[in-house]
Amino acid sequence: MTSAPSQPKSSSPSQEDLKAIIAPVQAELAIVEQWLTTNLIDDNPFVGELLAQVFQSGGKRIRVAIALLGSKASLKEGAELGRLNIIQAVLTELIHTASLVHDDVIDASALRRGKETVNKRFNDRLAVLLGDLLFAQASICLARIMNPVVVGIYGQVLGDLCAGEIGQMRSQFVYDVNWERYINKSIAKTASLFAAGSHAGAILNAASNESVQALKDYGVNLGLCFQIVDDLLDVTGSSSELGKEPGSDLRAGVVTAPALFVLERDDEPAKRLRELIKTRQIVNDEGAEEGLKIIRENGGVEATVALATRYAELAKDSLSVIAPSDARDSLVALIDYVLVRTK
Amino acid sequence: MTSAPSQPKSSSPSQEDLKAIIAPVQAELAIVEQWLTTNLIDDNPFVGELLAQVFQSGGKRIRVAIALLGSKASLKEGAELGRLNIIQAVLTELIHTASLVHDDVIDASALRRGKETVNKRFNDRLAVLLGDLLFAQASICLARIMNPVVVGIYGQVLGDLCAGEIGQMRSQFVYDVNWERYINKSIAKTASLFAAGSHAGAILNAASNESVQALKDYGVNLGLCFQIVDDLLDVTGSSSELGKEPGSDLRAGVVTAPALFVLERDDEPAKRLRELIKTRQIVNDEGAEEGLKIIRENGGVEATVALATRYAELAKDSLSVIAPSDARDSLVALIDYVLVRTK
Repeated sequence: MTSAPSQPKSSSPSQEDLKAIIAPVQAELAIVEQWLTTNLIDDNPFVGELLAQVFQSGGKRIRVAIALLGSKASLKEGAELGRLNIIQAVLTELIHTASLVHDDVIDASALRRGKETVNKRFNDRLAVLLGDLLFAQASICLARIMNPVVVGIYGQVLGDLCAGEIGQMRSQFVYDVNWERYINKSIAKTASLFAAGSHAGAILNAASNESVQALKDYGVNLGLCFQIVDDLLDVTGSSSELGKEPGSDLRAGVVTAPALFVLERDDEPAKRLRELIKTRQIVNDEGAEEGLKIIRENGGVEATVALATRYAELAKDSLSVIAPSDARDSLVALIDYVLVRTK
Repeated sequence: MTSAPSQPKSSSPSQEDLKAIIAPVQAELAIVEQWLTTNLIDDNPFVGELLAQVFQSGGKRIRVAIALLGSKASLKEGAELGRLNIIQAVLTELIHTASLVHDDVIDASALRRGKETVNKRFNDRLAVLLGDLLFAQASICLARIMNPVVVGIYGQVLGDLCAGEIGQMRSQFVYDVNWERYINKSIAKTASLFAAGSHAGAILNAASNESVQALKDYGVNLGLCFQIVDDLLDVTGSSSELGKEPGSDLRAGVVTAPALFVLERDDEPAKRLRELIKTRQIVNDEGAEEGLKIIRENGGVEATVALATRYAELAKDSLSVIAPSDARDSLVALIDYVLVRTK
């Protein structure tokens, strides 16, 4: 269905590719979309408008796709997704969106997907509250699922999201090379929610332990691939593709894979990059530009592509025990989509 | 057990009074305390220390007391509180604490209960995350309760808390007198959680509909009384009692009962107070001082005491259908405690 993830396509994946990938869960996705734009707990029109704006601002619904496809792949051929599968997909996207809204406050971001953030358009106060409202809606979904194992999984995700951000905040401008810390942070920030999305539906569908574990492994590895590509795009992307300025991680003193690959070397570029971070010159336009240039010219990009590709392959391998189906094919295709995306 | 709430004691209630009130649920309160200071979802020692600091900073656990006493009062004589009653009490305090941490960010408060807030001691970013972590812990508790009615109640509370704050934010510096708006905002901000705390346990204990409704009414009215007293203390309190500067509502353009009682008059003081708010002189020390003086000298305090007392009486009346017990006596005593507190 797609090229091997070890050879990323040179052309970027289009909206059409994503449409083909989600085809097996197209109908369910529409229901999820309705849930997301229906205000569950507040009939204030101003709040409703804000929520609609947040959800209609061009999110790709990758986590929804993962949840629905994971649930579908865990079912017997021809079986339909149930109400709980829909709620679990909604839950996953709500948590993601809530954390984006709060992340934009935390990072003082003005743009997301090329549009003004809630904190920029209004203020931090409203963005904190809107994120809280989204988390509240997620709590209600989680509670409605009424499955203690799934509660445990998403509870861990919520804790991981906070702990991951707190960890990142505390390791700003830290330039020693610690890959374990980087991977753990990436799991907490991203892969934990991907994994919850991919395998909680299989639990609700009473799939075999083997399938549940396979879908969980898929989610962790795909999530790591996604985060690494995200970190890469911050170095290679253009502002028109990213919908924000590139180099924002470096400017914030957040050291990710592309920088780590340079920093672990014992040469002049590594030394200079360490210097830029250590002296905090990296926060300025000039310092950030120099940092990006060092990373780009010293193999940081290629090594990061290879790392992302490794996790893409692990994600693909995880699916080997899942019975063939359109949904499984789409989960495979989604890996390539995540790997070669440009935004 | 206590004096009638229509005649507030002139002496302020002490820690001893509160101890006597919570005596019927002393053992359970200790278990709740343990839950609160046990980090449920994150083993990061830094985060654990932050949470401990937040919970040990002198909160009076009034909502825990309401939840445990409400649950106890709904049980047959001699029956013990169950695990779900404990979780519901923990849930109630977690939501309260999470919203305090975020409120301090939203209001840019530097002090709470005389101690530095998380946003002041560290920064807004960490406070947003810590609040999120507390909300996440609350979600887990809510989901563990596995009761759809209780989920609906707390879902409403979470929505109300956000909507109440958003409403307050949008009505800053609005000086027209709209009592319905003030009461609705107070329900959303405060009384909704009080009511959830007071009656959800009765639902879990399968108490009669009549008892459930009575405990709910108790919570709403006590919550309104609490909020009105809070608004009053911002006018009458000293900074040593409040643990923060008085007049903070006025400075923020938040118009509450004591100001509304003056504003609804058709005289010079009302006109001058409107002027101070309209021109935003109220945000400055001088303007706030003048505003407080106008309120104090023109019956704002007395009228607000009368309003709080009215809700205290309604709360007391609500309990008439609850069978007599130590727990019910304590719920009654708590009304006076709330009414005459000075901080």
